[in-house]
Amino acid sequence: MTGNLPFEALSVETLATRLGTNEALCAKIGKDASAWKVREVGDGNLNLVFIVEGASGGAIVKQALPYVRLVGDSWPLPLKRSFFEYHALTRQEARAPGSVPEIYYFDEVQALIIMEYLAPPHIILRRALIDGRRLPNIARDIGLFMARTLFRGSDLSMVTKERKADLALFADNVELCDITENLVFSDPYFDAKMNRHTSPQLDGLVAELRADRDLKVEAQRLKHMFAANAETLLHGDLHSGSIMVTDQETRMIDPEFAFYGPMAFDVGMLLANFWMSFFSQRGHEQNGRRDAMRAYLLGVTAETWAVFRAEFSLLWRTERTGMLYQKSLFEDQGDRLGAEQALDNVLHQIWDDLLGFAGIEVHRRILGLAHNADFETIADEDLRASCEAKALKFGRHIAVNRRQIHSIDEVNNLAALIEQENSI
Amino acid sequence: MTGNLPFEALSVETLATRLGTNEALCAKIGKDASAWKVREVGDGNLNLVFIVEGASGGAIVKQALPYVRLVGDSWPLPLKRSFFEYHALTRQEARAPGSVPEIYYFDEVQALIIMEYLAPPHIILRRALIDGRRLPNIARDIGLFMARTLFRGSDLSMVTKERKADLALFADNVELCDITENLVFSDPYFDAKMNRHTSPQLDGLVAELRADRDLKVEAQRLKHMFAANAETLLHGDLHSGSIMVTDQETRMIDPEFAFYGPMAFDVGMLLANFWMSFFSQRGHEQNGRRDAMRAYLLGVTAETWAVFRAEFSLLWRTERTGMLYQKSLFEDQGDRLGAEQALDNVLHQIWDDLLGFAGIEVHRRILGLAHNADFETIADEDLRASCEAKALKFGRHIAVNRRQIHSIDEVNNLAALIEQENSI
Repeated sequence: MTGNLPFEALSVETLATRLGTNEALCAKIGKDASAWKVREVGDGNLNLVFIVEGASGGAIVKQALPYVRLVGDSWPLPLKRSFFEYHALTRQEARAPGSVPEIYYFDEVQALIIMEYLAPPHIILRRALIDGRRLPNIARDIGLFMARTLFRGSDLSMVTKERKADLALFADNVELCDITENLVFSDPYFDAKMNRHTSPQLDGLVAELRADRDLKVEAQRLKHMFAANAETLLHGDLHSGSIMVTDQETRMIDPEFAFYGPMAFDVGMLLANFWMSFFSQRGHEQNGRRDAMRAYLLGVTAETWAVFRAEFSLLWRTERTGMLYQKSLFEDQGDRLGAEQALDNVLHQIWDDLLGFAGIEVHRRILGLAHNADFETIADEDLRASCEAKALKFGRHIAVNRRQIHSIDEVNNLAALIEQENSI
Repeated sequence: MTGNLPFEALSVETLATRLGTNEALCAKIGKDASAWKVREVGDGNLNLVFIVEGASGGAIVKQALPYVRLVGDSWPLPLKRSFFEYHALTRQEARAPGSVPEIYYFDEVQALIIMEYLAPPHIILRRALIDGRRLPNIARDIGLFMARTLFRGSDLSMVTKERKADLALFADNVELCDITENLVFSDPYFDAKMNRHTSPQLDGLVAELRADRDLKVEAQRLKHMFAANAETLLHGDLHSGSIMVTDQETRMIDPEFAFYGPMAFDVGMLLANFWMSFFSQRGHEQNGRRDAMRAYLLGVTAETWAVFRAEFSLLWRTERTGMLYQKSLFEDQGDRLGAEQALDNVLHQIWDDLLGFAGIEVHRRILGLAHNADFETIADEDLRASCEAKALKFGRHIAVNRRQIHSIDEVNNLAALIEQENSI
């Protein structure tokens, strides 16, 4: 495949022919393309994903389509998202080595990335959590990933000229930002066309939330922050479906929503997905109670946040070379406590905001277009609705009251309290 | 002059030869270039400014230099700032018609803008205020200008795709942002090379401020907001030296610092300059007391903020067509009060932040590189230092305590109280 041909979607049938001479791929999996085994495994909402296995190994071929796969060609979406995914992956690898798949090849015209195949036992984290698996390392690995990428992609660390140039580059990822802006922050709170929810069970609660003025205003304030506060390069879609795990290893994938936004967004979305998993566990108790799993999940949120704080603080003290909170104003004046005071401020702001983003993320996964398998795989609709209702109430509470909540333990106690209620 | 020649600085001697065939200029001031009268009048820190007068009128020719004029060629500064000034002027004219000079011609390579000559009785606002003149319309005109440009340049009004593209364009104005980032937010708070202050009178207070941890942290939080929160297209340097006035008319000039930043920055810098004028009046009482002028200036701050609020609120209710705080969530649901609640939130945020920016702006004009004529023209150093010291204390108070200050009257009462103190 050369860069001169116009974009054409790959298929299981054409992949070996079209990529058979690709040196990077051949070097990785073997030159005999006739022996390649190709499967299409894309289960996300947007793209084609192929696993290609040859004599000497496997690789992932991910290709964007010029529309939203989940919806079809009635919803066009530019191929350039592949460009942003590629650039995000390279930056994440530089800032948090070992946390993302290795890239073998990128073709901008074909909107195609060839990358490391995370073979079984790698599994999507969301799937593992639905299965009730307690992964031992995810809190540490994800906490470190977030602290490192968010800190090192900001003016706390970067040369500001380079950050502004990169910000300008990613500002063109406007269509994917638009998806988040609408689907996450607005659609769930009115009768938008693509919304769906478990009905009629949730109808009453949905009407209540859409009439909830404080909630709507808060969601829009968060949208304002999301759209305007270009603080750092975000993953942009960091949920449990964007993370591959084994018991030992954790890798973040699919950063095509990457852009410069508020640090708290990635952290809030990620934690929201742990809390949703927590509320969904009641729907997966066919083979036994999930009490230990629930306790594990709350522990994971607490540990993720603790690891994030600790690593962010370490980087603050050791790598704060950017133009913000310069050492010339603090440490160089013998004022280490000044730098610590500023750190506390920055972490407090992230905390405040992440609770808002978390609450909104919970809502959009239950009320909007793109639902979570955590809830969707609960076949009994009444049971599912009961889990979802509790999550909705939890999301509302933390979004609206975020400035009055001071610790992750408070949030987890609240989650436990709501989870144990009997009625929706 | 054609666009093909490399950049060359104009001079009084060469201007008529080089621009004698410029159609836009000839159309405005007359074709007989040999009869043109040329004066260089740039009194700012950065550029060449010529007044060219011909048989049928006059024009301003403003040209950037590849360095900072105030400092010399040891401090290079890119010519592209002229490009940003031109684009900012066209956007400001579209968003607040009649508020900026008319543009006749722009040459990117020569970094040159030919524009409307605001002839006498037009005068720089700062000069008029030093002279003790009470301009009747400035609060209204500047309040409207800020509300219209800041609202209409944001996601409250713009198509977000266009705003993101424009944000990317202005992100390249990095060198001028860098000046603000360093000179405004950081240098005043440590022993930076280019700082100066009235010495020895202020030495003690300067040492105190540089040891003031809360102040330093707050200044850096504001810098963080300035650098990251790309909310709207700012003027970026909206002080009383960037405004031309007559008793009837008000025009904003010199937006070469334009970039996407927080709404509160323009408002805070502008109000700070009124407060500095207020504190400087004691130094200009050779020909009589300035009590009425002081009262006028506090009235101007109150009216400017009131006009800003009123116009911003009007635009919120009538022109809120952007993606933020969409009507589909509020008015379209019969929830007008929800939209008002959100408006109150947005205005409150601007208020909170503008006090911070105002306090920091006061400090940098007394402690940093670029001082104000308001204070600089006070020849008696003890008297000047006394005025400056009061302004410094005022700036410190509003920057650090901004979240506990609820109205402009509170701020003005504080200013009056400090101004009447006897000692520095």
